[in-house]
This record gives sequence, structure tokens and C-alpha cells, in this order.
Amino acid sequence: MDPRTGMPRVGMVGGGQLARMTHQAAVPLGQTLRVLAESPDDSAALVTPEVEIGTHTDLEALTRFAQGCDVVTFDHEHVPGEHIRALVAAGHLVYPGADALQFAQDKALMRERLAALGAPVPRYAVLPGAADRDPAATLAAVVDFAAPGWPVVLKTARGGYDGRGVWVLQDEPAAAALLAELGPGTDLVLEELVPLERELAAVVARSPFGQAAAWPIVETVQENGICVEVIAPAPDLDGRVAAAASRLALRIAGELGVVGVLAVELFQVPVSDTAPDGILVNELAMRPHNSGHWSMDGAVTGQFEQHLRAVLDYPLGRTDALAPWTVMGNVLGGPADGAGAGIGMDERVHHLSARFPEVKVHLYGKAFRPGRKLGHVNVLGSDLARLRRTARLAADWLSTGEWTDGWDPHTAATTAAVPFIERTGR
Amino acid sequence: MDPRTGMPRVGMVGGGQLARMTHQAAVPLGQTLRVLAESPDDSAALVTPEVEIGTHTDLEALTRFAQGCDVVTFDHEHVPGEHIRALVAAGHLVYPGADALQFAQDKALMRERLAALGAPVPRYAVLPGAADRDPAATLAAVVDFAAPGWPVVLKTARGGYDGRGVWVLQDEPAAAALLAELGPGTDLVLEELVPLERELAAVVARSPFGQAAAWPIVETVQENGICVEVIAPAPDLDGRVAAAASRLALRIAGELGVVGVLAVELFQVPVSDTAPDGILVNELAMRPHNSGHWSMDGAVTGQFEQHLRAVLDYPLGRTDALAPWTVMGNVLGGPADGAGAGIGMDERVHHLSARFPEVKVHLYGKAFRPGRKLGHVNVLGSDLARLRRTARLAADWLSTGEWTDGWDPHTAATTAAVPFIERTGR
Repeated sequence: MDPRTGMPRVGMVGGGQLARMTHQAAVPLGQTLRVLAESPDDSAALVTPEVEIGTHTDLEALTRFAQGCDVVTFDHEHVPGEHIRALVAAGHLVYPGADALQFAQDKALMRERLAALGAPVPRYAVLPGAADRDPAATLAAVVDFAAPGWPVVLKTARGGYDGRGVWVLQDEPAAAALLAELGPGTDLVLEELVPLERELAAVVARSPFGQAAAWPIVETVQENGICVEVIAPAPDLDGRVAAAASRLALRIAGELGVVGVLAVELFQVPVSDTAPDGILVNELAMRPHNSGHWSMDGAVTGQFEQHLRAVLDYPLGRTDALAPWTVMGNVLGGPADGAGAGIGMDERVHHLSARFPEVKVHLYGKAFRPGRKLGHVNVLGSDLARLRRTARLAADWLSTGEWTDGWDPHTAATTAAVPFIERTGR
Repeated sequence: MDPRTGMPRVGMVGGGQLARMTHQAAVPLGQTLRVLAESPDDSAALVTPEVEIGTHTDLEALTRFAQGCDVVTFDHEHVPGEHIRALVAAGHLVYPGADALQFAQDKALMRERLAALGAPVPRYAVLPGAADRDPAATLAAVVDFAAPGWPVVLKTARGGYDGRGVWVLQDEPAAAALLAELGPGTDLVLEELVPLERELAAVVARSPFGQAAAWPIVETVQENGICVEVIAPAPDLDGRVAAAASRLALRIAGELGVVGVLAVELFQVPVSDTAPDGILVNELAMRPHNSGHWSMDGAVTGQFEQHLRAVLDYPLGRTDALAPWTVMGNVLGGPADGAGAGIGMDERVHHLSARFPEVKVHLYGKAFRPGRKLGHVNVLGSDLARLRRTARLAADWLSTGEWTDGWDPHTAATTAAVPFIERTGR
């Protein structure tokens, strides 16, 4: 308890944008998020006064941090399981626990656990990363796995994200070259390249008490392995498929004992024996997730508030959508030397508001770097085509300082009629 | 500019809940609110890392604070005008400016300025507070003002709030007693006791550029001079009256040169020569205001974000409501020895979420004190009677730790069916 307020102290390991947005959600709950950040300039460290500097792999730093918290949770999945177990053994509450989190840390464990549960997953094989792994035998296993046909997908079991650590292998020579580059010592997961129609995500939250809540199933749109757009709810999704996806995510959360937000990334594929509902699990994330950012503006309870409620074992909030559609667009750092490079983020926000006063901006306070997630935008309403266009234009503008449709504020007609807004004064 | 982020630094004088909620709104805009607080335990100082300790009447503290800000604004209206002018003379941007803010600081000035603008105001008279004010002459002026009939209303021109500094005088002896108690030296405003039907508020925001935006007109419900409930939009309000009220507030914002949020508190009264639209101006507030708290959850752009946009001269955000109705309930500290006194706020939030998972909680991190504003709740939807009941029950529960309808979680049926929520796990 914070003696000043009588409210609980949640600590989040990691000072990235997820922690930043969790602090934003903590404020109305009467709380102050504590953050273990690598640097005082980390995204979350810029906005909360309760910052400790330290690294998530340093058990001493974690222990010191946990001593000031009623419950510890995570901005990312990189805290070693043995450190989490040590914190729990020392009497700290840590959610999600190590037993759950391992399935978000290791894709090989995740595939095997989900397969054991009978959850729909792509055909896969695990290549254990023994230090003495025989290159020829490993290649033979890949070739064997690819017998039904190339290409196949190879992933590192640990450490990949946003498309990193994932390769599509077109043939045996490509596989041989990659395996030589990766060397032994890294667990690998082979997967079939699924006949992907699109990607979906089922985001849920679960409390220690066992209550769970699901947001509507969303469609996620990736480019170069990075999510660029989320549409809530997923357009034209069969109601039975949506219900199956929600049930699947709730079941995974329960079976794995997840506490907090769980995002289940899904492939939508043709119905088959292995995908009876037309969905296959791609990956799991046990924290607030990019596919849930829409909920900050588009749902009664956003994912960051829900994550706090869950780890505090509060009853969960309603997850209903506030509008027929919400579209999220990611703001990724554009090329540094683009035409808009001279236009700072402050000025970009200014111009964005002038053109699209309905867009909700979420900026992470991060320095520009090409491809880096700098923020996102949400926009909600009833005209999906227009919302998607607005979100994309807005995100691209904030990313690059360029209007990709060639819009020019100096020649454009003034913004479409905005009710309740007028120019006043002398 | 904050060199770490390239984003502007807004500073707010005062560390109360309005600053706290402004920081919450600053985070998604990529900013960190700077706060000049009286104490490190102030509501806002608990949630932002950028805190300076100092008093709003200390020009040195204000000057030091302003040097770290791109623009300075206010959590309250108590900064002396000459200090604001000194800051501006030293080259700082301060919004709202002293010329505008004086009308929110001094009810006598406000009445005279609005009357000069032809804005509808109650019949009034100003009793200047000269130190040598003759008690007999002052009483005679009150009696003269009351000639059409007692009771009349007497207000101190400066310093009153939440019903303090306002008295209803029933007769001449009461007036004599109060004047004797107040003594000379305080400007007083006499007003007719208007034939009040209900109270409304028109909340708008205006930027230095002169753009202004209005939220829907709301009804405010007071008890003992303190706002306890706000209904957005005001039920059964004639569209022409609503439009007149919005136009009036936008006109006042423009004529007075307000920058930031302006709340115009209104009396709804029968139509008359002095109230041709059935509204009279009660008071002005030039900052985010209790009557605008509903917009945090109920409108596309909440008043705290809009205030930041306005003082930064960003284009303003859309003010559309997200649901047919939003109801705000104030959480006021209840009697310290009530039956719920042993139930801490953490536990109250827990139980509230169990009963009403749709309620949005906003807590200010303040220690309990009877009558103190500790937080508010918002709830939105389409069934107004139910929303009002929910907001009232929720606010009373958080205030007192008692369900005023006698609800008992141990005997009550489980919460009405909540879609997407179920119990999971082993």
C-alpha cells in the first residue's frame, strides 16, 4: 500500500511504452505505477515519478524493486523465469507467474503445450538447440519436415519479435545457409507456411480469482512482420468463428494460469481437420499488446486498465466497444531523410489535429529511429472505409511528416464542418 | 521543448486533481506535465515526475517554474494578476492571461463585464469593499436592493467556491448580522434569488488562434452548494436553449479572450426580458471544471486534453459524445465514522467493480476528509434513469463504504449477465 493514498503499488518491469500507458491507466485508479527502467529517458520513466533504474536480468535490482511493490508485472517477456521464481519464493506477488510466462517466452514450449491441450496450431517440429547439434542431421530434419512441400517457416524459440527471428525457407540450400548462420545452441521451431487468409487477435484478461474478460476479436494487418493496423472488430468475421476464437483464448488463459492481459495471435485459414474453426494459434503475449491498443479509446475498459485490475485481482471491467468500429494505426519511425524530416513531432501533431480533429493520438516520448514504434492513433465511428483511410493517413503523417495522399493544408479546403467548433474572438 | 522528446512542456500552477488529470491527458500527447505544487503529496505531484514545490503567490517560485515551461496554465484561479503580468513581461506564455482570468477571480468584475456585453445575468449590485465602508450605508444598500422582495443573495467577490462565500439573506436583521461579521474591506455582490428551475453548464475551450469548441450543454445537480452529479447532455433541454447557451459561452470566451477551457455555470429560469433564452450566467471558471469531468470518458476529446491543446494553440479536438448519455457522480468524503469507515478505498474500488463493471473510476489520491472531493465516477449508455442510479450508488459507495440501497454482496444475486466475461481456469 502507498501510505499516502491507501492504494496498492503495482510495479512494472520495463520502462517502454506499455509501462507508459499502464501508468496513464493507473492514475484514474488512484495509483502511481512504479517502473523498473533501463534509463531515466525510457518512455515510461518520463511520465511516472516512481522509477528505479535497473535491468530485468539483474535479480538484485528486481528484488529491490519488488520490495516497493504490492504486485510486480511486466512490460515485456524477457525476465528470466528463475528470477520470477526467486521473487515469488521471497514472498512477492508476481503476475503473470513463471509457469505461465514460459509459454510466451519460448515458442517451442508454447507449441508443445498448446498441442497437448488440443488447441489448433500449425504443423510444427522442434529442433532442440543442443550445443553439439549435428548440422547435417538438423538439415535432414528440416528437409524431412518440408517433404509435403517448400517453403517452410523457421523461428528461433526465444527472443524474436516483430518479425525478427522468423524466416521463410524457400528450399534446401536456403535452409542450409540459415542453419549454418544460426549455428547450434538455439532451439528452433519449424512450422508449415499456413494458407493464411488474414491475421486475427483474441485479447483477453484473467485475474488470479479466475475471472476472465474478452474484447471483441480484431483483425491485425502486418507489413514486413510488424503490425501496422488493427481493426476492431474484425470485419466480416463469422460470429461462430469469433466465438470460437474468444473461447480458445479464454481457455488458454485458464489452462496456462495466465494473470493479466493475454493476446493470442491467430491465423485465419480455410477450415480443415487441424483448423476446424478456421483459426490456428500463431503466438502468445502475456502483457498488454499492440493488438489491444484500440481498446484505450474504443472500449469501455482499455487493456492497460484491465491489466492493472487483473494483476490486483480486482473484478474486471466491461469490454464492450464504444462504436461500431475502431481502427488503430501504428506510428513507426519513417526514413530519417524523408521530405518530412524537418517537421518535428510537435508540429506533426498540430497539423494532424487540424486535418483530423477526431483522431486520438498516443505518443510514446521516444526519439526517432526508422522502424521504431513511436506511437499509435485510434479513430472510431461507423464508416469503416473512411476510418481505415483516416488512420492510415494519420499514422503515416506522424511517421514521415508527409501526407501520403498529397494533401496540402495551404490549398485544401477547410476541414469538413465540425459541429460545435467555430472561430471566436476579436 | 523537452529535448528528450521534442515535445512542448506545459506547466500547471497548482497540484490538485485538475493538474493530476491534465497529466493523464498529457501522456498520450507525448508530453509530461510540469506542476508547481504546494507539497510532494499533492494529488498531481503523486503522478508526474516534473514537480516543483512552491506557492502560487510567490513570484520567485512562479518565475523559476515558468523558466522550465513552454507555456504556463492553472489548476485554480488564485494566482495574482500582477504575478501573471510579471511572467508575461518576462517573456513567458501564460494562458489564460491576467486580463481574462480577472473575470473568473472577481465576481464583481465578472458581473459588470458580462452586463456590459449584454449577456443575461441576474439583477445585481456591487458593494465596494472600501476599508472605511460605512456599515449603516451598506445595510441601507442591501435593503434598497431587496425592495422587490427578500430573500437576496450576497457573495464575496473573491475567494469563494463550492458554495463558500455565498449566503442567502432572508431579511434585514440577517443582512445586518452578516455584514457585521464580514466587516469592511471585502467587495460584495448582491444578487436576486433567481427563480431557478435547474442549473446548467456550458463548457467550451478556446485557443490563442481563436478556434473554439463546445461540448454539449450539461445539467449540474448541487447539494449544499457542491456539485454532486452532472448529466450530459442536459435532459429535455430545448434545442434552441442549448444552442443559445453554447453561443453565449463561445461569445464570452471570445470577448474575454479566454485561452483554455471556460466553464460557464448557468441558471435555467423562466423566459423573461432579462432572460430571453431562459438562461442566466451564474459563474465563470477558466480551467477544466467539475462540470466537464464527464467528457473524460463520454466525449471524443476530454476537457483535460482539450485544455492542453488550447494552451498549446493546437487545433482543438472533436467534442462529440460517445453515447446518448453520460452521468458523472462526485465522490465526496463521507462522515469519518460511518459504517463504511473501516473499508479502505482499495477495497471500495474492488467491490464497486464487482457490482458495476461498467463504471469508470477517477480517484485523486487524496486523503479522506469529510466533504472533500476525492474522485468522481462516469458511466455512459442509453438508459438515463439507470445510469443516474448507478452513478449515485457508485459515488456514494466510494464516499462512505455503504451501499445506500442496502445491497449486500453476500446475499445479492451475481451481477447481471456480462457479455465476454466468464470464470476460467482450474
